[in-house]
Amino acid sequence: MAKAPILTPRAEDFPRWYQDVLNKAQLADNGPVRGTMVIRPYAYALWERMVDEVDARIKAAGAENAYFPLFIPESYLQREAEHVEGFSPELAVVTVGGGKELEEPVVVRPTSETVIGEYMSKWIQSYRDLPLLLNQWANVVRWELRPRLFLRTSEFLWQEGHCAHATERDATEYAAKILREVYRDFMVEVLAIPVFIGRKIAAERFAGATNTITCEAMMGDGKALQMGTSHELGQNFAKAFDIGYLDEHGQQQLCWTTSWGVSTRMMGGLIMAHGDDRGLRVPPRLAATQAVVLVVRDEDGSVSAAGRQLVEELTAAGVRARLDDQVATAFGRRATDWELKGVPVRIEVGPRDLAEGRVVVVRRDLGEKEPMDLSAVPGRLPGLLEEVQASMLRAATEERDARTVDCTTVEEALEAAATGFARIEWSRLDDAAIEELGRHAVTVRCLQTPDGDLPASDDEAGTVALVARSY
Amino acid sequence: MAKAPILTPRAEDFPRWYQDVLNKAQLADNGPVRGTMVIRPYAYALWERMVDEVDARIKAAGAENAYFPLFIPESYLQREAEHVEGFSPELAVVTVGGGKELEEPVVVRPTSETVIGEYMSKWIQSYRDLPLLLNQWANVVRWELRPRLFLRTSEFLWQEGHCAHATERDATEYAAKILREVYRDFMVEVLAIPVFIGRKIAAERFAGATNTITCEAMMGDGKALQMGTSHELGQNFAKAFDIGYLDEHGQQQLCWTTSWGVSTRMMGGLIMAHGDDRGLRVPPRLAATQAVVLVVRDEDGSVSAAGRQLVEELTAAGVRARLDDQVATAFGRRATDWELKGVPVRIEVGPRDLAEGRVVVVRRDLGEKEPMDLSAVPGRLPGLLEEVQASMLRAATEERDARTVDCTTVEEALEAAATGFARIEWSRLDDAAIEELGRHAVTVRCLQTPDGDLPASDDEAGTVALVARSY
Repeated sequence: MAKAPILTPRAEDFPRWYQDVLNKAQLADNGPVRGTMVIRPYAYALWERMVDEVDARIKAAGAENAYFPLFIPESYLQREAEHVEGFSPELAVVTVGGGKELEEPVVVRPTSETVIGEYMSKWIQSYRDLPLLLNQWANVVRWELRPRLFLRTSEFLWQEGHCAHATERDATEYAAKILREVYRDFMVEVLAIPVFIGRKIAAERFAGATNTITCEAMMGDGKALQMGTSHELGQNFAKAFDIGYLDEHGQQQLCWTTSWGVSTRMMGGLIMAHGDDRGLRVPPRLAATQAVVLVVRDEDGSVSAAGRQLVEELTAAGVRARLDDQVATAFGRRATDWELKGVPVRIEVGPRDLAEGRVVVVRRDLGEKEPMDLSAVPGRLPGLLEEVQASMLRAATEERDARTVDCTTVEEALEAAATGFARIEWSRLDDAAIEELGRHAVTVRCLQTPDGDLPASDDEAGTVALVARSY
Repeated sequence: MAKAPILTPRAEDFPRWYQDVLNKAQLADNGPVRGTMVIRPYAYALWERMVDEVDARIKAAGAENAYFPLFIPESYLQREAEHVEGFSPELAVVTVGGGKELEEPVVVRPTSETVIGEYMSKWIQSYRDLPLLLNQWANVVRWELRPRLFLRTSEFLWQEGHCAHATERDATEYAAKILREVYRDFMVEVLAIPVFIGRKIAAERFAGATNTITCEAMMGDGKALQMGTSHELGQNFAKAFDIGYLDEHGQQQLCWTTSWGVSTRMMGGLIMAHGDDRGLRVPPRLAATQAVVLVVRDEDGSVSAAGRQLVEELTAAGVRARLDDQVATAFGRRATDWELKGVPVRIEVGPRDLAEGRVVVVRRDLGEKEPMDLSAVPGRLPGLLEEVQASMLRAATEERDARTVDCTTVEEALEAAATGFARIEWSRLDDAAIEELGRHAVTVRCLQTPDGDLPASDDEAGTVALVARSY
């Protein structure tokens, strides 16, 4: 039967397709206060998986989780000039507490460098206390005038790492370690999203940072999404919050601090990097449900029983599987719904196939259907899921690389940026060129060494600028 | 060598002992905004373990995690009369956002019945959508005039379950299921804290609830701590937020809702239920570090190497183990510190013992030292940890039961409540008696059936009141 498309086709209107996916796959709703967001259970389960995977990598990188208050005295932000300038326009301010006007208004944290700086100052005495590697999972608030679910919301969920180091070199190395070993590794290996890493130009740095490095991904419409950043804060916050230590020679020194974060914005990246006209496509390593066993129909309960047993066997084989035996709802509608939700593999169990000891296995990424012996499924699935994972990363990488063009002029770069990324020598982009790009909403996403690595500074010979439209 | 006590002895000044443990074991600090709290890494790791264990039980009870906004329009709270009356005095109110005065002030959630009610109303259409079982892990804010770390803080972390049911009976059963299978099971089996379950008297109910049931634990000073509650909200919120459904006969019906929560308050309970004059004692099933391998001293690196290998073997045996090879710090100081932090088992590895293939295993709960063959440790530890777990629960139960006295008069109850809990027939407590108790800061913690179960109402024959001082 021919079906009316559930989603606006991507090619027709990408932003509307994105909004359709959020609605129809029941991922998120707008909150009642402008710019806020409700994350629905299916999406939240994906976020939990992201948290688990990122958290494990953060712990492996030696940082410990802690929790700092939501409320920050307004005066804290004012101690670092660039920081307060950057964040002031976005603050939510509490002026009434417990029925009374507060003596000093408190801001709802937009990020926690300041309040954590205050405690670092108390906790760090000597070089033996360094590095101090902290992280927290928290909500933060930045008032958004043009909100878009997951991508820019007034409240979002994230992790924010905050570290104090003895030397500038330690700080530089740790900021890069987090970007490579935590963020890029997670994005490539779990999200199956290839990301470029690079250095932000000065105008795009975090407010108060001396260097911001970034992971940039290409979305389905060729635009860039900044997926995660890691900042060197120099001694800016160490000075503002008196974060110092006695070195091995008994000399008082100032620390060098770093901060780094990824957020629910990655959910937007996941949807826009992998989604197609039928909905979300979730890479298996991320998926909270890797395989859904779908009972086609069932007269006497025997098909559901077989489905339930298959789920048990899959679970025993290490597959995150679940049963859909809601046969009161039409099979086609349920199949479409699991497609919408992007579950990597669907296993259709119907009475006729079952009588012959067979099921149909459907890959969400390619849409391929394959009949399979029921008894072979638990053995085959783990390998198939890894195949899907690899295939999704390969496809996303090919797509990205095909749409990333080496350019030598601003005109060429603008043309390339209409459908993807442009690579151009950084030395070719003077202020006038950057302004010209900006007129077309094209910006420098990051600077890279010629082989795609992090440059040590903005003015290394051969540095390449990656330019694109962006979210 | 004789040591000056690190902590104020519990018998001398229990509140000060509590504060000492928080400071010396580096568990928590006061935040810069009055009433807020910084949770330091060691304590946060314990909270993460609590979250993992509670979350697994919540999922087993069929609820799904989601996330709702921090900010709630003030008007939402006003829709349920008792709710707004109960929470108004504790609200933090945001009046400025993005540099502008807000048209409608928003409150920072003190709890989320209202905002979640709004979405339940949208998401529930028919009886097929019921029960809707939601949970979120979040921070909430209730302005506290007399804050105490973990026990009463202006911001705290918690989970809040919010469910909609088709019938009153479903609601009653699910609220009780959560209390028994999630909260009590976790507290008894993981925290090793025996808890009484019971029904709150009307005056102590959650604002907007028709029934509140509770887990009440006894702290080291004989006072009660409310460790978790589960509420039946009747149709109060269903009416206020229009949460309804079409039943099987096509009739429009109102839902019955429930909500339930446990918070970082449990951290306070853990400390006060198990702590002793040497610090915290963490039950092994909860402990983020179950066994610390403590290198006594090390001239040539061989002792640390042996310690490291032991940690690997323990990890392979399923023990959460870590190494302390910081031999630059005196052994005694490190041993005291691990005692302070309450790690269940300490394994001391010194060069002399090691030469004989032996180590010393020290149980934190009883302080017992036992020499053990190094090679036997990985095999023995899992059993020893379970023994410690059982022993801690047994000791806490015996202590609690010894301090829980059956009484027949208010005078007896007051005497018993000076050092613990009193059990007295509920029918003996008229308004004058409750007032008399109140003058001594003694309150009815909960009502129970004679065999310690949940009564179906306040006026069942034989209902027993548990009265005590409380936090």
